[in-house]
Amino acid sequence: MSEIVASYLLHDNKGNFHKKAEGIALGLTVGSWTDLPLLDQQQLQKHKGRVVSVTELQDCERVNGYLGGEIKQAIVKIAYPTANFSKDLPAILVTVFGKLSLDGKVKLLDLDFPDELLAEFPGPRFGIEGIREKLGVYDRPLVMSIFKGVIGRDMTYLTTQLREQALGGVDLVKDDEILFDSERTPFEARVTEGKKVLNEVYEKTGHRTLYAVNLTGRTFELKEKARKAAELGADALLFNAFAYGLDVLQELREDDEINLPIMAHPAVSGALTPSEFYGFSNSLLLGKLLRLAGADFSLFPSPYGSVALSLEDTTGIAYELTRPVYKYKQSFPVPSAGIHPGMVPQLMKDFGIDSIINAGGGVHGHPDGAIGGGKAFRAAIDAVLSHQTLAEKAEESKELQKALELWGTVEVKA
Amino acid sequence: MSEIVASYLLHDNKGNFHKKAEGIALGLTVGSWTDLPLLDQQQLQKHKGRVVSVTELQDCERVNGYLGGEIKQAIVKIAYPTANFSKDLPAILVTVFGKLSLDGKVKLLDLDFPDELLAEFPGPRFGIEGIREKLGVYDRPLVMSIFKGVIGRDMTYLTTQLREQALGGVDLVKDDEILFDSERTPFEARVTEGKKVLNEVYEKTGHRTLYAVNLTGRTFELKEKARKAAELGADALLFNAFAYGLDVLQELREDDEINLPIMAHPAVSGALTPSEFYGFSNSLLLGKLLRLAGADFSLFPSPYGSVALSLEDTTGIAYELTRPVYKYKQSFPVPSAGIHPGMVPQLMKDFGIDSIINAGGGVHGHPDGAIGGGKAFRAAIDAVLSHQTLAEKAEESKELQKALELWGTVEVKA
Ligand SMILES: [Mg+2]
Ligand SMILES: [Mg+2]
Repeated sequence: MSEIVASYLLHDNKGNFHKKAEGIALGLTVGSWTDLPLLDQQQLQKHKGRVVSVTELQDCERVNGYLGGEIKQAIVKIAYPTANFSKDLPAILVTVFGKLSLDGKVKLLDLDFPDELLAEFPGPRFGIEGIREKLGVYDRPLVMSIFKGVIGRDMTYLTTQLREQALGGVDLVKDDEILFDSERTPFEARVTEGKKVLNEVYEKTGHRTLYAVNLTGRTFELKEKARKAAELGADALLFNAFAYGLDVLQELREDDEINLPIMAHPAVSGALTPSEFYGFSNSLLLGKLLRLAGADFSLFPSPYGSVALSLEDTTGIAYELTRPVYKYKQSFPVPSAGIHPGMVPQLMKDFGIDSIINAGGGVHGHPDGAIGGGKAFRAAIDAVLSHQTLAEKAEESKELQKALELWGTVEVKA
Repeated sequence: MSEIVASYLLHDNKGNFHKKAEGIALGLTVGSWTDLPLLDQQQLQKHKGRVVSVTELQDCERVNGYLGGEIKQAIVKIAYPTANFSKDLPAILVTVFGKLSLDGKVKLLDLDFPDELLAEFPGPRFGIEGIREKLGVYDRPLVMSIFKGVIGRDMTYLTTQLREQALGGVDLVKDDEILFDSERTPFEARVTEGKKVLNEVYEKTGHRTLYAVNLTGRTFELKEKARKAAELGADALLFNAFAYGLDVLQELREDDEINLPIMAHPAVSGALTPSEFYGFSNSLLLGKLLRLAGADFSLFPSPYGSVALSLEDTTGIAYELTRPVYKYKQSFPVPSAGIHPGMVPQLMKDFGIDSIINAGGGVHGHPDGAIGGGKAFRAAIDAVLSHQTLAEKAEESKELQKALELWGTVEVKA
């Protein structure tokens, strides 16, 4: 019998976790058991949920004080037969965290999929490997930058910014996730004019930059729009997966006529992950589930900025995006926010070669503008790869030097 | 200039909420302001976010202890020009709570839509009025019951349960939200055989019961499946809106070929609402937004059961579902869980005539089975409407009497 195993963190002031776990395992599957006739039990055996483990944790003064009592904690694992649900994420989420999400203090930490179920999900179409092939860059982290202050602006403003970013040598530029279809900067024009600019830069410099255009609008128009983007030669799609639904992401990934890398933005996911009592773990939501559904890139708050996740959460996300899972390709981890060239050694230590260094202010705020910002990041990466210090490298790169003067160098922490 | 106004609850240990509010208003719209040239300011004026108000609240010992410091709280209202986004819920959510959802302790309490924006959303197709017309019942709360223990069962089991529930006089029966398409109980068979049973009951008793079939599967197949259900004569759809996305709900509502009432189930919404620091308020998510997107019914945990919301939250949801908003129809509030016939006076006091009394165990657990359970609820409602006590009514209704003996009578609280 094939089962999906869900791990939950429970907080409860009674703390009878074994009873609670049994209630979940039955309540979310066959409903009841001991009072069923034997014949029914035989028929329902393969639909019955099962308590895998109950691990009580130390209770915590801080939580006790907050919730007013002696609050017990436990990690509970429940196995749900895959016979109970159709092989799609909405059905899985409703089974393992539908009504249960409303049932007191319960956080979904992880889901362990059996291989037969994994086989129903696509994983990334391109993955780290495919993106690297598109760029012809194999041996270093990629650099990404973002548009800044583009709301209300026109195509000239956008393409100028795009050109500057590409000229600095960044590998990817993403739309602002809050840039929607508008008269001044319509979706199709962003694709075609963006492409034109990036081709010009390529002809001039030999450097290829990919542009991720924000796919927005009504759900049932997304596929048509994405196919159109592909037809017009778009490089990649940015997608606010949590404003739509993970299954919509998967549908876009699975459409062979779209055939574009998909960059999942974490917008709105902060409503689902940060509580210690409720919602989803970051590694599950922004790591495992995004990859399963087919995101080639997962953006998440870096552990360094003012909008930050813990280092443990971010490396947990990156781990789920890249570890061997079934036959899925790897997704690119994109820790974002608060990043400047002086942090590159720390970033590469924390996230390795197979990650993307993504900066906004750290590119655009450079004294020489976005061109200088991009060059400074590229120089910083070269330094780390050639075992130079940033200070040493700054002697050859005036852009890196100016960046270090402005933002400083972050001492690498173990 | 048309604006949507978002209200947030912020917790912050620095507590410089005016600065924070300015940062949000600019950061989520034009990006910067004071350093912009005058010409740019003129061009961007109609895209610029605006701080509407900042109201500091008393800080709270319990929260201070938990978060370790003097934590300030404030309610901050920010206005975002509607010129910045396309007129769909994903765009609105990404604008007002995209990156911001990840930016520390911020909870989205409410959204105030201007009329031009409301006009882009459908509201319920049938609403309370349309559902009452379908049933021919105008002067009392409706009674709904649910299937129990149907995972792994066959169509005979389902239709038998459906018949018993209908014979008890309930107005609506909903599928279990964890019942997906399966070989034994496929979607279409549930519609056609369910219809047959309910027609038989109608012929026999003159009582009409509507059955909400669970619409499940992959997102881009939902419309076709729902149209098929409509064609086959389905009464209503149950939909796990939060496992898919609010815009998917809206798409189903707007499809004229579907033309069926939609019952939104709160599955997975508990990942989004219960934290005091993060996510969405219940009245916004399960009230205002579900109605706007077109749910005819919104199910939510009642304030009485073991899976419970506060009375304030539930009446807040019901208020948003029923108060005059634009030209939208009203959605039926369906407080669910922990409900038995002895609670009907309290329910009717808390939620009024225009609500649905929804019970699982309170119907099926009746000593005379689901038939007795339904009859007991109907008798309890009659009692309240005719200003009798339940005890008085129990003299005429043996089903109510047995229910009160089993579950007791809940004293009505002011
Ligand atoms: Mg942005
Ligand atoms: Mg259920």
